[in-house]
Order: sequence, then structure tokens, then C-alpha cells
Amino acid sequence: MILSDYMHQLGQRARTASRQMARASTAQKNASLLRLADLLEAEAGALIAANALDLAAGREQQLDAALLDRLTLDAKGVAGMAEGVRQVAALDDPIGQTSNGKYLPSGIHLSQMRVPLGVIGIIYESRPNVTVDAAILCFKSGNAAILRGGKEALNSNQAIARIVHRALCETDMPEDAVQVLDTTDREAVSLLIQDDRHVDVIVPRGGRGLIERISRDARVPVIKHLDGNCHIYVAADADLAMAERLVVNAKTRRFGVCNALESLLVDSAVAAVFLPKIAAALAPRSIEIRGCDETRKFIAHATPASDQDYATEYLGPVMSCRVVADVDAAVEHINRYGSGHTDAIVTATIERARQFVRDVDSASVMVNASTAFADGFEYGLGAEIGISTDKIHARGPVGLEGLTSQKWVVWGEGQTRP
Amino acid sequence: MILSDYMHQLGQRARTASRQMARASTAQKNASLLRLADLLEAEAGALIAANALDLAAGREQQLDAALLDRLTLDAKGVAGMAEGVRQVAALDDPIGQTSNGKYLPSGIHLSQMRVPLGVIGIIYESRPNVTVDAAILCFKSGNAAILRGGKEALNSNQAIARIVHRALCETDMPEDAVQVLDTTDREAVSLLIQDDRHVDVIVPRGGRGLIERISRDARVPVIKHLDGNCHIYVAADADLAMAERLVVNAKTRRFGVCNALESLLVDSAVAAVFLPKIAAALAPRSIEIRGCDETRKFIAHATPASDQDYATEYLGPVMSCRVVADVDAAVEHINRYGSGHTDAIVTATIERARQFVRDVDSASVMVNASTAFADGFEYGLGAEIGISTDKIHARGPVGLEGLTSQKWVVWGEGQTRP
Repeated sequence: MILSDYMHQLGQRARTASRQMARASTAQKNASLLRLADLLEAEAGALIAANALDLAAGREQQLDAALLDRLTLDAKGVAGMAEGVRQVAALDDPIGQTSNGKYLPSGIHLSQMRVPLGVIGIIYESRPNVTVDAAILCFKSGNAAILRGGKEALNSNQAIARIVHRALCETDMPEDAVQVLDTTDREAVSLLIQDDRHVDVIVPRGGRGLIERISRDARVPVIKHLDGNCHIYVAADADLAMAERLVVNAKTRRFGVCNALESLLVDSAVAAVFLPKIAAALAPRSIEIRGCDETRKFIAHATPASDQDYATEYLGPVMSCRVVADVDAAVEHINRYGSGHTDAIVTATIERARQFVRDVDSASVMVNASTAFADGFEYGLGAEIGISTDKIHARGPVGLEGLTSQKWVVWGEGQTRP
Repeated sequence: MILSDYMHQLGQRARTASRQMARASTAQKNASLLRLADLLEAEAGALIAANALDLAAGREQQLDAALLDRLTLDAKGVAGMAEGVRQVAALDDPIGQTSNGKYLPSGIHLSQMRVPLGVIGIIYESRPNVTVDAAILCFKSGNAAILRGGKEALNSNQAIARIVHRALCETDMPEDAVQVLDTTDREAVSLLIQDDRHVDVIVPRGGRGLIERISRDARVPVIKHLDGNCHIYVAADADLAMAERLVVNAKTRRFGVCNALESLLVDSAVAAVFLPKIAAALAPRSIEIRGCDETRKFIAHATPASDQDYATEYLGPVMSCRVVADVDAAVEHINRYGSGHTDAIVTATIERARQFVRDVDSASVMVNASTAFADGFEYGLGAEIGISTDKIHARGPVGLEGLTSQKWVVWGEGQTRP
């Protein structure tokens, strides 16, 4: 079959399945999820064997160590998958939740009901656990999913798909509720993101290149996560011991995560005291500091920061640093160079905090807390499909609710409009 | 100045103004709006004179009567504009509204705060009153607006822009909060909808051609309103007198509106009774009926309906009609041919109503009410920027809230993440 026909049929099947999914009860959906969790544990050996094929091929192609690491699925990984499925089964079902119900002057009763989006396309790179995560979040929120994983993980993903389909069949749910592409043709992605008749939203998960390409070419709306260039601003009146703890935590907890601190802003009033302090605190972790001229007066080993540095998400042991005059200057810097992901202020005064919270145009804005908290689990969403740096539909950590829409529901008793 | 530089500067000015707008208090915004309302009334003569230039040019270019009618601004029209501005001033300010506030296990306090989207581009056709409506809705919701009206209304729109700017200046608000393009170059639209650095969302208001072109070419997210192909399904157990009232109201109240009835579905159990009844009721309004074979058994003057008819938003005195077997068949027809705008069932039983509400995938789903209620004013939104047929971000009538985003706000006391 030619690819465009294959993708068209896949889209049609997803649309049909999405209608059935929208009707599924919470109990039905949870039964499928719990069955899936059991099957993942029972079939751990088969999954690990399929994954071994991908790993062997990856080593042959000399994939780098980090990529091979992300690709690896071991017994602990499979157990973690099953546990994640049980957690999603335990989450509240967003579908059917109703809000803002009221009678209007015409006598009609109006409310907004949460409903599935319909068909969700997820395009991701190497981690096979995304296949399970994405499938179960779309499923619990009443959607049909079309999943397209990285070519390095093809065997692993197909093995997972077989188990998901078994769970769906054994619990009388439509098999097409979760379809995993079995082609690695890049053209399949182009067809998928253009198919606005059958696909309601695309969620790309991966590197900047993948996401920019998809955003540029898609006709289907995209919920995307670009950079996490996160800031902490240490204000003139900050508790400097607290500021030190927060900066060290946000910068060194994990380097490669999107909520990691990438750029430190220090008020000029405390620069002379705080900068040497934080340089000493970060020294044991060998963090390279790239700073403005003022910074370099107080941190001898800091190298000069360029405009490009201020706009960079390092995802590594590097941090840019700038001395700023006041809250206004900090806000301006963040809104100019930041990525709208997560930014924090350390301050003791309400006025500064309020100004920062109001003026910083980011998905998460924090007062006296580590940027590392910007996360679906920490925010109590139970699970996340990603962290959106978009402003429309879903912003910040996206859980089940971000995969839903709302419909207006009107109940009347024969009202006509004059 | 070359057009791309002009548009770039316009975008930058809008972004700068949007930062000031996000900080504006409700009192400041309302003061500007009330000043604008007064100025519109005081300057009615100047507005009508500017509009006369557009009308004269339009007549010279032999624009059709309907277009000239939409273009016309008279004393009553200006008074209506001023009244609309006062109504928006009276609406609750969505900005700063906070929801879902809670302490999390880590001890941080998390909430979601409603914030402006930033810069909103509105592209519309001939009606000059849209210039005021769009400006004030964006303004009240704390956004900067870039407005691009139809070339037929250029003089009217520029006259309105001058009054808006006077109101902004006289109340110490940034003039760039509302920019009205003074070029009619179509390339300006292309540049605007591609400028994802300075523009956060595009709202096109106009015909299908305009909206499809913008959706296809935009890099900025679009909140769009395509067809309103609305249905009423008369179930087997419907109160047929009520069904008749609802169909007559939804079909004949106004032909050219998006919530008008375009397609009637009648359960086969009541077709023989209801179809002659409704044909007689619609006869005085000369509604052409295009029906399936079953329909034509009971309505002699009905012409045959094609698949294309079922998918058409007539916006005129035509209605398609089909006899269906049951609720399932009605739902399937609506989800296949409908446009996801507004669909209603007439029924006495809870089970049918629940099924219809759950399974019809439309922005508004109604039980025993006229589709004519699908409207921002009727829904209590106070005003609407349009009716979205998209599923993401805003669906159905879009009021002030649809022009906002949310940010996550975290208050801590030095919490770090383990």
C-alpha cells in the first residue's frame, strides 16, 4: 500500500475509534488500563528482548551513549511503566466534568462539559516509555492516539503496541484507540501533521529541531514545548542563604531537564556579597559561569557572557549570570531572553513579589521556590504529556485536562430566541 | 518605508504596549473605555463623514448592496458602538482571576492566574463596527491589538482609530495598545500572520475564503470560525408542537447568521406526521427544502438533496432535510456532515438527550432549545469576538476569557526539590 493511503486509513480508523472512546465510561477505561499494567509485568521478558534488538542495532550504528541510555528498557523500567499505568488509572477522569452551570435570562440552562479532543498525534524520539505514557494519557482522557516513535526504538515500540492492543481487546475497547506507526518513513510524519480532517492536535516531544520542523509544517494545531531557559532573580532584599539553596537546587539537581536553572540575575545591591557566595557554592559541581562585566568583578573565574548566552538553554553544567539594577530590569531581561517556561524571584517583600508575578510573561512564575518544581507530578496533575511553552490552550505542565476540550451544553424546555 | 520594516516596527510597538497593558489596573482600563464611549458620541459627525467617503467609493466600485449595507455607519450605528463600549467597561475584568489554588505536599502554594495573551491580530472584512468591538475586547482583556479591516472601510476605520488613540492618550494608556493598519496591501496580512515573535494569536473574522487562507498560511496560532452548519434532530418521542416552534425559530429568525438552522433531521417514526407539518409552517417564509427520498414522500415540493447539500451552510432560505432511523443515525449524520458549531435534539426522554449531548462533537449541543441561542450575549459572556469552531483553546462563543491565557503561580518559603 502506498504511504498516503496507509496514513489516510490510519486517520479514519483513529477518528472512528475516537467516537467510541468519547462514549467509554470511566470504569471501562480504567479496566483497560489495569489490564495493561498486568500485561506489561507479565510480558516484561518479551519487551526486554525486543528492546535488546534495538540496542544491538543502535550499537552497530554507533549511537552515542546518552541516546543508548534513553533507549534502554530493563526490568526496572518495565515495572516503572506498569506502575505509571496504575497511577493514571487512579486519576480522576476529566471527561464529563461540568462547570459554570447556570440559568440564563432566556430560561435555558447552560454549562460547559469537558470532552475529549478527539484524535491526538504524538511524535517523539527515542525513549520507548513515552509510547506507554502517551498512550495511557490519551486513553484516560477519552481520545484516540496515533503514536510515532523514533526509528531507533521501532522493535521496542511495536512490542509495546502489541501488549496495548491485547489489553484493549481483552477489555472490549477499540484496538484503534491506540495506533503505533510501524513505518519509519519521515514522510509519514508530514502526512500526519497535515491531516486536519482526522487529527485534532499534535504533541511533539523531542529536541528543538523536531519541534520547530513540526510547528512550521503542521496544519493541525500543535501543543509544543520549546526551550526551558529558566531564571532566578535574587532581589535586593532576598534572604541570601535561601537564595543560595534555591540556586544550587535549581542548577545542580539535574542538568538535562527543562526546569533547570540556566540564568541567574542578581540585584546590584547584593551582587558583591552574593556572587562570591554562589560561586563558592557551585564550585564543587564544576559549573561554568558566563557573566556580565559586573559579575566578573566578583567572580574571577567567570567568562564573558554574550547575548547568545542569555538566550541559551544549556542543559549542562553552565550558567549565565547578570547583575541587574532592580525588579524592572530583571523582568525586562527575562521577557527578552527567556523562553516563557519558569522563572523565580527570591525576595522578602510583597511589593517586589507581586510585581514579578504580574510582569514576567512565563508559564510558571515562582516566589521563593526552586524552578525544579515546574513539573506535572509536583503540581499534582498526576502525570504529564509535556510542558507547554505556548500561551494558547495549555500552558506549562500538561496533564489529562490539556488533552481535553469543552462543549457548551444547553437544556431547555422549548425556548425560542426572540 | 518598506512594508516588512513597517510591519516589524508595528509588531515591536505592539509587544511593548502589551507589557504595559498587562500591568494596567481594571480602573485604568475602564476609564479609557468610558472616555472612548464619550468621544465616539461627541465625534459621531466626523465618523459618519469619513464613512460617507467609503460609501461613495464603494458605490463607484459598484459593490453589491449587502456589502454596502454592512459598510454603512449612521447615527444609530455610532450610538450602538458607544453603548457596546460601556457594556464592555461594565464586564468583570478576567485578568488576575485566580483558580485551583492549593498547597502541595512539598509545601509550595500553587494557583493558576488569568493573564492576557499578549498581542492579538484581528483580520476582518467590511463592517467598521468590528474595529471598535475588537479593540475594546482586546483592551479590556489586557492585550495589545493589531487590527486590519477591509479596504472598503479604510476611511471609517482610520477615523475610528483616531478616536481610540485620543481616548488612550487622554487616559494615560499606551497609544500602541490599539494599532489599526493604514495599508490595504494584502502582503501586510501575510507578514502579520507569520510574525510569531510579536503576535500571540490571530482572529480572522470574515468569509470562508479569508479564514481558510489565513489558517493555511499562519505561523501564529489562529482562533477561527468556519461554517455554522447547524442541525435540529426531531426524535421519535419529541413534542412535535415544540419541534415545530424550534425549527421555525432556528431557520427563519435570521437567515445569514451562523447559528441558523441549515439541516433538519427527522426520526422515521414521526416523519409522516412531522414533515407535512413543518413544510406548512415554513411555507409562508418560502423556504426551499432539499430532502432525502423519504422526505420527498411527505413533502411534495422538496427537491432532492445531495451529499453536498448536507454539508452546506446556506445562510439563506434553503434547508436540507433527512429522515433518520434513530439517535445513533442522527449523531452519525451530524458528526459526518456538520461543522461542529451548534446542534440540537428535540426529545422528551433523558436517555436520548444524554446520548445526543455526549456523542455530538460540536461546540454547542442543545436539548429542546433553538440553535439561535448559540451566541456570546445569550450565553452571558457580555460580548463576543467570534464563535470558534476549533477544539483547542476556545470553543463556541469567545468572550473576554478566550482572549486570555493562564500562568501557574507558585509561592514558597525557600522550598527545594529533593
